Amino acid sequence: MSERLASLVDGVPTDRVPIDDRGLLYGDGVFETILLEYGQPLWWTQHIDRLCQGAQRLGMDAPAAKDWQRELDLLLRALDVALPTHAVLRISLTRGSGGRGYSADASRSPRRLMLLFPAPQSVDGGGLRVRCCALRLAAQPALAGIKHLNRLEQVLARLEWQALPSEQRSHFDEGLLLDAAGDVVCATIGNLLWLDRHGWHTPPIVDCGIAGICRAELLQWGWVDECSLSASNLDQVEGLAVCNSVRGILPVASLDERVLPGAAAASALRSRLLQQEPAFDY
Amino acid sequence: MSERLASLVDGVPTDRVPIDDRGLLYGDGVFETILLEYGQPLWWTQHIDRLCQGAQRLGMDAPAAKDWQRELDLLLRALDVALPTHAVLRISLTRGSGGRGYSADASRSPRRLMLLFPAPQSVDGGGLRVRCCALRLAAQPALAGIKHLNRLEQVLARLEWQALPSEQRSHFDEGLLLDAAGDVVCATIGNLLWLDRHGWHTPPIVDCGIAGICRAELLQWGWVDECSLSASNLDQVEGLAVCNSVRGILPVASLDERVLPGAAAASALRSRLLQQEPAFDY
Repeated sequence: MSERLASLVDGVPTDRVPIDDRGLLYGDGVFETILLEYGQPLWWTQHIDRLCQGAQRLGMDAPAAKDWQRELDLLLRALDVALPTHAVLRISLTRGSGGRGYSADASRSPRRLMLLFPAPQSVDGGGLRVRCCALRLAAQPALAGIKHLNRLEQVLARLEWQALPSEQRSHFDEGLLLDAAGDVVCATIGNLLWLDRHGWHTPPIVDCGIAGICRAELLQWGWVDECSLSASNLDQVEGLAVCNSVRGILPVASLDERVLPGAAAASALRSRLLQQEPAFDY
Repeated sequence: MSERLASLVDGVPTDRVPIDDRGLLYGDGVFETILLEYGQPLWWTQHIDRLCQGAQRLGMDAPAAKDWQRELDLLLRALDVALPTHAVLRISLTRGSGGRGYSADASRSPRRLMLLFPAPQSVDGGGLRVRCCALRLAAQPALAGIKHLNRLEQVLARLEWQALPSEQRSHFDEGLLLDAAGDVVCATIGNLLWLDRHGWHTPPIVDCGIAGICRAELLQWGWVDECSLSASNLDQVEGLAVCNSVRGILPVASLDERVLPGAAAASALRSRLLQQEPAFDY
């Protein structure tokens, strides 16, 4: 379990937040999870832009990128241990403190939280063992795509196998999430890439799920295109991979214990990303 | 805006919470909002039971009722001002601290938060001016009925009119929330009661919304029954009221500026509740 290395609240080194923070009361806010290599953030502009857009969709003002950069510098100076080569920065922007009820008090300022963690352990070469989750992502256009703090669906989805007795729990590393219509949307900790004879695709993010930064980069480079995937067609999929900003591309070895023929192709896609973005090579 | 009078974290008087609390990271937890009269909680057993059931549905262990009672005593002793006649107790149970990712660490304990606020201002005799919200509640059976911390839908629904320029904002006090099928589910701060020639009803809580304690009491006493209400039939509804555990029954004067003929009947229902539960008479 990664232990926190340093944290700031509104630019001040501290590890405590006021008990009336609306992020804590209602999950009222947005966040970003960013890879640092030698203290340098990967895809910084993309992450700060998405944070800002998410905040605006929730009716919150967001600080400018240069303010966040200044606070990242403060955070790294607040470290009292050596900075690991690879680390994970989590930024949260909550709607701040404000009374007891759901109504937002526009006179209050959003609250900025920054947390620094060691990077997770290196990827097992064997690939992820994935299962289809029972929980379906709810359709909520007002929140779709936003990396907001209301993440109980992801928590519950992971509990489906995390809460099993230990000998069963270890069978799976990740889960696929479907929507109410039975289309595959994403994984619990990232977006999904899927392979057929036409190439690599990723499902559209419309009424649910998060529009990931790694996914956006892969689309922009033309390495994947947007294409829906019905769960009823999963048995014909040749390969799968999960992508996010902390890990890059994680190949999938098996889906519900069916070994995927395209696992090697997924590994090749990961390797291709490591050449493009060596920061993920850890 | 109500200001906090006292707070405890895991039974200790403090107003700060660790920055890695999962309630703050993901809205990972449940809460209750309880009216206190002379420090005595109303419907205490019902609220603690619901907290426990909600925690269990999220895969969390919950403390026993006597542990919560002991902490309420501690909270009231931690007050350094006079206890108001009427106050509001907010209890949160989060999944505690635990690393960076969505996975829950079963070895960590849930965290107990208690906050005490003054009761809100007395009810305006004129009745609530209500509008239909544009936001639709998403269908999520895994979370429906639970008073969990993922409340962005309620926050966004209230922002629909709260974020208007002040001269327009003051036109409305509350909003009705519909589901994707166009059925009326509830209000933003409570459940909904509706009146036709057959009497008072409340919509069923199935795939979305919160199963309120006040609503449950009214159903148990036979003062209302469960009956769906389609938004397309709202123009035929004679009366409306909003109910919750802090306010009891709040009559509605108008819906989207249509004055309701049954507003007096709603006031009579409120009066009937005040006789049954005088704690709401403030």
